[in-house]
Amino acid sequence: MFDFTATYTDQYQITMSQVYFHRGMKNETAIFDYFFRKTPFGGGFVVFSGLEDLLETVQKLKFDDKDLKLLRDEGMDDEFLDYLETFRFTGTVRSAREGDLVFPNRPVVSVEAPIIEAQLMETLLLNTLNYQSLIATKAARMKLSAGDRTLVDFGLRRAPGTGGYSASRAAVIGGFDATSNVRSGRDYNIPISGTMAHSFVQRYDDELSAFRDFAAIRPHDCVLLVDTYDTIKSGVPNAIKVGKEMEKEGHKMKGIRLDSGDLAWLAKKSRAMLDEAGLGYVKIAASNQLDEHVIKSLLEQGAPIDFFGVGTSLVTGRPDAALDGVYKLSYANGEPRLKLSESVEKINLPDRKQVYRMLNEDGTLFGAEAVALQSENAPDHMYHPSEPGASMDLSGLQKEPLLSEVMKDGERLTQPKSLQEIREFSQGQVGKLPDEYKRFENPHIYKVGLSKKLKEVRDGLISDHKSRI
Amino acid sequence: MFDFTATYTDQYQITMSQVYFHRGMKNETAIFDYFFRKTPFGGGFVVFSGLEDLLETVQKLKFDDKDLKLLRDEGMDDEFLDYLETFRFTGTVRSAREGDLVFPNRPVVSVEAPIIEAQLMETLLLNTLNYQSLIATKAARMKLSAGDRTLVDFGLRRAPGTGGYSASRAAVIGGFDATSNVRSGRDYNIPISGTMAHSFVQRYDDELSAFRDFAAIRPHDCVLLVDTYDTIKSGVPNAIKVGKEMEKEGHKMKGIRLDSGDLAWLAKKSRAMLDEAGLGYVKIAASNQLDEHVIKSLLEQGAPIDFFGVGTSLVTGRPDAALDGVYKLSYANGEPRLKLSESVEKINLPDRKQVYRMLNEDGTLFGAEAVALQSENAPDHMYHPSEPGASMDLSGLQKEPLLSEVMKDGERLTQPKSLQEIREFSQGQVGKLPDEYKRFENPHIYKVGLSKKLKEVRDGLISDHKSRI
Repeated sequence: MFDFTATYTDQYQITMSQVYFHRGMKNETAIFDYFFRKTPFGGGFVVFSGLEDLLETVQKLKFDDKDLKLLRDEGMDDEFLDYLETFRFTGTVRSAREGDLVFPNRPVVSVEAPIIEAQLMETLLLNTLNYQSLIATKAARMKLSAGDRTLVDFGLRRAPGTGGYSASRAAVIGGFDATSNVRSGRDYNIPISGTMAHSFVQRYDDELSAFRDFAAIRPHDCVLLVDTYDTIKSGVPNAIKVGKEMEKEGHKMKGIRLDSGDLAWLAKKSRAMLDEAGLGYVKIAASNQLDEHVIKSLLEQGAPIDFFGVGTSLVTGRPDAALDGVYKLSYANGEPRLKLSESVEKINLPDRKQVYRMLNEDGTLFGAEAVALQSENAPDHMYHPSEPGASMDLSGLQKEPLLSEVMKDGERLTQPKSLQEIREFSQGQVGKLPDEYKRFENPHIYKVGLSKKLKEVRDGLISDHKSRI
Repeated sequence: MFDFTATYTDQYQITMSQVYFHRGMKNETAIFDYFFRKTPFGGGFVVFSGLEDLLETVQKLKFDDKDLKLLRDEGMDDEFLDYLETFRFTGTVRSAREGDLVFPNRPVVSVEAPIIEAQLMETLLLNTLNYQSLIATKAARMKLSAGDRTLVDFGLRRAPGTGGYSASRAAVIGGFDATSNVRSGRDYNIPISGTMAHSFVQRYDDELSAFRDFAAIRPHDCVLLVDTYDTIKSGVPNAIKVGKEMEKEGHKMKGIRLDSGDLAWLAKKSRAMLDEAGLGYVKIAASNQLDEHVIKSLLEQGAPIDFFGVGTSLVTGRPDAALDGVYKLSYANGEPRLKLSESVEKINLPDRKQVYRMLNEDGTLFGAEAVALQSENAPDHMYHPSEPGASMDLSGLQKEPLLSEVMKDGERLTQPKSLQEIREFSQGQVGKLPDEYKRFENPHIYKVGLSKKLKEVRDGLISDHKSRI
């Protein structure tokens, strides 16, 4: 859908690259880690999303003629422009699996590449992964509330511009079943779903004629919107009339949709009316300002809703509206690197690293991950990143390395995964996460610690920098 | 940047169109109004944005081969697919001027077209206008706080996916001066701006060498990031050293950037150090979790900041993260139309309409707008849309009609406006709005009322529908 070019980035990536280029550093290896510091929505986990899109884009990334002309106009010199003209990403990407659950302050993706290349892809990486992971996480929370009811993305009209295109994808990874967004459905192979709008009913002089026309032309996919005039006095009785008429033609009405008013009360009342009329098979869909909390509340009240259409809250990921993911340099010029900060917690982890997940014997998540140097074995002990003295014994626990190479020398190593495959994997992982981490109020904090060696490298660099200030 | 096709829409637009098509209504004229019900951010106004992008896209909108194949697979019939293959938007669009200030519950855009065409463009219209107006409004609030300081969009990395592309555009309309987003800068002709990242400083063994290299290669555009190790003890002293060295080469350092810590205190301290060193011309840029409230507070504290880089809050428009704009049918099958609702306030305004703005003698905004039927003259009296008995005399006030034709028979009537032109118009309008509507806390509510005739049409339709339930 997009012609991403390499100017889909922040200007400073290009100006810094110009300096590296003229200082002879263009082939110098650098490592950058992508991680975030805070789970959104006050929740206990993040669903990692966006990787397939990112890899596909990075593999094709280049500066086109318009880009080069612009940069020339901006004063970039010829020699550097010649380099940019041939620019391709030739690095290595190590990553968590898309759809996996990820936690704060540990690498989710690690990019090892000539420093200019790693820098030039930073903004694209952050833009893609931050947003899709935010939306997949929001979707997964709604899925926790909705259980086996159907969840459909209705968000395009309130989506942040074309961001809505990838929101529909991320929603599926988080557990959504379908989207109303036809173009995303087409390109990402997502089931497409839709009902009718108020305007359709308004077009007719009476509601019943509108319902009849819709049923006549779309008898196999007939969901009637019943709140244009009065849900209980008009919408549901007219839907029942049409449902009975459809039966005579050998068809079955699929459902009705409630889009305003007290959804719990209206759903119960409508269900009773439909059942009374012998239309027990007609489903009830609900929409209107839903989020994970409203869906949970509706179902706790016993609202017989089969299908939730979610728009604004899903595609904006509000109230947070952003995942705070960052991309920090951890290795350059042959040495591990870090940036100081007022709090130790905000200091990045230097060097080439691996992350190990601790598993219980039955394969469920133990609730701890250790970050270690890539050169060491899985650690049997980990240390709190900022609390002095706090540590945890990991011996006897099964340990799963989480970062694996997905791109080498700029080429993908893995076959692209289908969205359904990623969704299934993700839902499986959510199933392995204990409930304490999934609750909405003050969830358990997933422990992330450092190996002894990594802690020593980091603390040594901190002392070193501080001694020089 | 995008290959928008006509499937960039909600599925129900297509299924409803299929019914209209087979019921012989495809050439029937319908009118839909775009409006919103609530100003975001608790503010007193919205900056209308997105129109030029929308018109450009609508003019080219069609179903491509992949779209048609998908719809065939989804079970659409041949006759309807033949129609879709030739689909173009041939309608009329009447609109407020892009960049103008708009208020709740009055039409901002009105689309008059064959009902299928009006329906098929709904989602694209909402997606474009809702997001860009949200961002332009957020930007305008920041501009109110920042006054004549420079505002730069740093948002792409935290933007909602590719939504960041148009966010940079909308930010300029709201009053921003530049963007770090190179691709948006290129395509929308926005000044591009950038400094350096922490990674650049980290790449070097010491901060001073990093600063020197940057100054050597980019002497005309040198803004140094001073908080990688310690702003006051290391960053600013090193920047001063390099600034003095640059003077010897005949160059002037442009600025330093603060990106963490207490920005007010650090700005004052840095300013004093720079001035002391004779570098009074070096500007101070600040970034890190800024929004309109933080910028206001910084300047109230007397922080000598010249340049604000704003990211997440700008491009997400949080906390609201969405403008609640809707697109409602107001006329079809030769008759005005409305949808009932539990509250009169939420009932749409039927029929073909014009909006009149009341102006004071000096051209400033009086604080009232009247919605009238297009067929009547500018009204001299207006009625509250829901409070019985409340009305306002408008005689003697200058009245400006706000909706004008921008597209007819699917062709644009106006020359595309440049972004700078729209920004200037918008800033001029903000200047004409009294302060009470611009304050952040409980702003004055801009009055929107109905002409007597429009109120009669609406109330008649309400009675009529209620009598039939």
